[in-house]
Amino acid sequence: MTVPSIGVTSGDPGGIGPEVVVKTLARSGLLPAAAYVVFGDPRLLEAEEERLGLRLGARAWRPDSAAEPGVFLAAVPAPEGRAALGAVTAANGEASFRAFEAAVGRARTGRLAAVVTAPVSKSAWALAGHPFRGHTEYLAGLYPGAVMAFWSERLKVALFTHHRPLREAVEAVRAPALLDFLRSLDLGLRRVPGGPFRLLVAGLNPHAGEDGRLGREEIEEIRPALEAAAEEGIAAAGPFPPDTLFLQALGKGDTIVVALYHDQGLVAFKLAAFATGVNVTLGLPFVRTSPDHGTALDIAGKGLADPRSMEEAIRLAAAFSATGS
Amino acid sequence: MTVPSIGVTSGDPGGIGPEVVVKTLARSGLLPAAAYVVFGDPRLLEAEEERLGLRLGARAWRPDSAAEPGVFLAAVPAPEGRAALGAVTAANGEASFRAFEAAVGRARTGRLAAVVTAPVSKSAWALAGHPFRGHTEYLAGLYPGAVMAFWSERLKVALFTHHRPLREAVEAVRAPALLDFLRSLDLGLRRVPGGPFRLLVAGLNPHAGEDGRLGREEIEEIRPALEAAAEEGIAAAGPFPPDTLFLQALGKGDTIVVALYHDQGLVAFKLAAFATGVNVTLGLPFVRTSPDHGTALDIAGKGLADPRSMEEAIRLAAAFSATGS
Repeated sequence: MTVPSIGVTSGDPGGIGPEVVVKTLARSGLLPAAAYVVFGDPRLLEAEEERLGLRLGARAWRPDSAAEPGVFLAAVPAPEGRAALGAVTAANGEASFRAFEAAVGRARTGRLAAVVTAPVSKSAWALAGHPFRGHTEYLAGLYPGAVMAFWSERLKVALFTHHRPLREAVEAVRAPALLDFLRSLDLGLRRVPGGPFRLLVAGLNPHAGEDGRLGREEIEEIRPALEAAAEEGIAAAGPFPPDTLFLQALGKGDTIVVALYHDQGLVAFKLAAFATGVNVTLGLPFVRTSPDHGTALDIAGKGLADPRSMEEAIRLAAAFSATGS
Repeated sequence: MTVPSIGVTSGDPGGIGPEVVVKTLARSGLLPAAAYVVFGDPRLLEAEEERLGLRLGARAWRPDSAAEPGVFLAAVPAPEGRAALGAVTAANGEASFRAFEAAVGRARTGRLAAVVTAPVSKSAWALAGHPFRGHTEYLAGLYPGAVMAFWSERLKVALFTHHRPLREAVEAVRAPALLDFLRSLDLGLRRVPGGPFRLLVAGLNPHAGEDGRLGREEIEEIRPALEAAAEEGIAAAGPFPPDTLFLQALGKGDTIVVALYHDQGLVAFKLAAFATGVNVTLGLPFVRTSPDHGTALDIAGKGLADPRSMEEAIRLAAAFSATGS
């Protein structure tokens, strides 16, 4: 039986990452058959297992052996053997960064088909001297065509821009950049099962500009980009009025909404896919998914974290890996 | 029995307005007890009744008599006795404008407690020489404190700005204007049953600016406006990250989200309140509600229109009128 190897990073030790990883992989028999490889510090993971009264039963991972179904451990020692629960510390940041870096390194050399990342703290990364906004930005540094997308059964969204002030996000809506983005997205989607996908591109302005009366970007930037994309065979339609577009896309599995800025896409996605949404990075040579929530420091270590989004992230990584290259 | 008098305009004769009015008021026995006064051309309304096989049984309205429960007709002759179905024409625009103007005139002199407006066509209004974007803009001309809001059981949203290019909407986020808006909203809400209401104000930028790293408007404009509002006793909190704020407000009847621009509010509202959302204008001396959909010219005259949003608009107008001044 050939199964994919899927890396699962344990996230910031101060947050709910280790908890949702342990909760999900303790029931790995219910997940698609795969070698689930947890990247993290063994002492931190054991402490989490004890707190939760759950057992991963992880075996040591041998990256060069044939993958078997089950849970494995790729030990990545943290600078400190205990977590500063609920806190933002350099040690926590360093621990989560090392685990992520190790998993990505293994994926880049083909030892992992996918990497599922538990939430990290951007501030803790900064304290540890790793000034990335998050996983996606780190990966975009390695792969400039990386695209941030959000996946659920009800709705799928790709973000043209994300973590920028709205004022800058408006300025960024230019035909050449949008065309580049559509190319990257189209390419990234080719490895994804469930396709071919239809891209529905949102307008920037209310009512998609209403023929220029409520803004000119649709006419001057977005339409030209869509026309050029069509000439290259990219199935992208629009621009559509943002306020009804997400409703139209709801429940259509082969449809992806291209949102032009962070909140256009995420206001809709979080309403439509509450608790089961998955963050996906497209355009990498491997699959990368992540639950659609943060470190939730306020409930860390209390056993209260909802693991559904992590479970969906793992299931999606497995599904994408099954047909991925 | 004292009942409120509620005007119901029939909307653009080329669209689905007359249809949803007839469908809803033909079952007026199921609605709250009120004098429902339809403003429109009798010939157009009769034609709609025949098409649908429904009877309003409307009696002539006598504005100076005591209001009784039932359906009444305030005849407002249209320039043409037949509707150009599915078309945008000056005659259609003039017909809907006259009916709206007549109803508002009666409300301004206290003969109506509320006006419920069926959808009109801005383009048809323009052809007829009435260059308003819509009902709300006409009313804002009469009452500068008018606020566009959206009401449903699941979610309530008020829009700080609405029909403006996003670039301009970003520029409009200034402390003095936001404070003025919060004052108008607070005042408008005092007449509304279900209060006192809590206002949750969205940020402009992703993650509400993240302490200035993703935009400065939260620090420089929004917080100062909220602090000044708090000093005046206005219960407005924020700014909150837009992508999770609507989710937090969902299902909380006494909570109103203040959205800073059209699509921030309406992407969320249309997803949360599909088919039953109501557009409300606050800050008028009378109640004004409207279904949350347009003229839908493509299905006009076919009997296919969903009257739920009109019914909700009428129910809300009745509820607000019951405790209104």
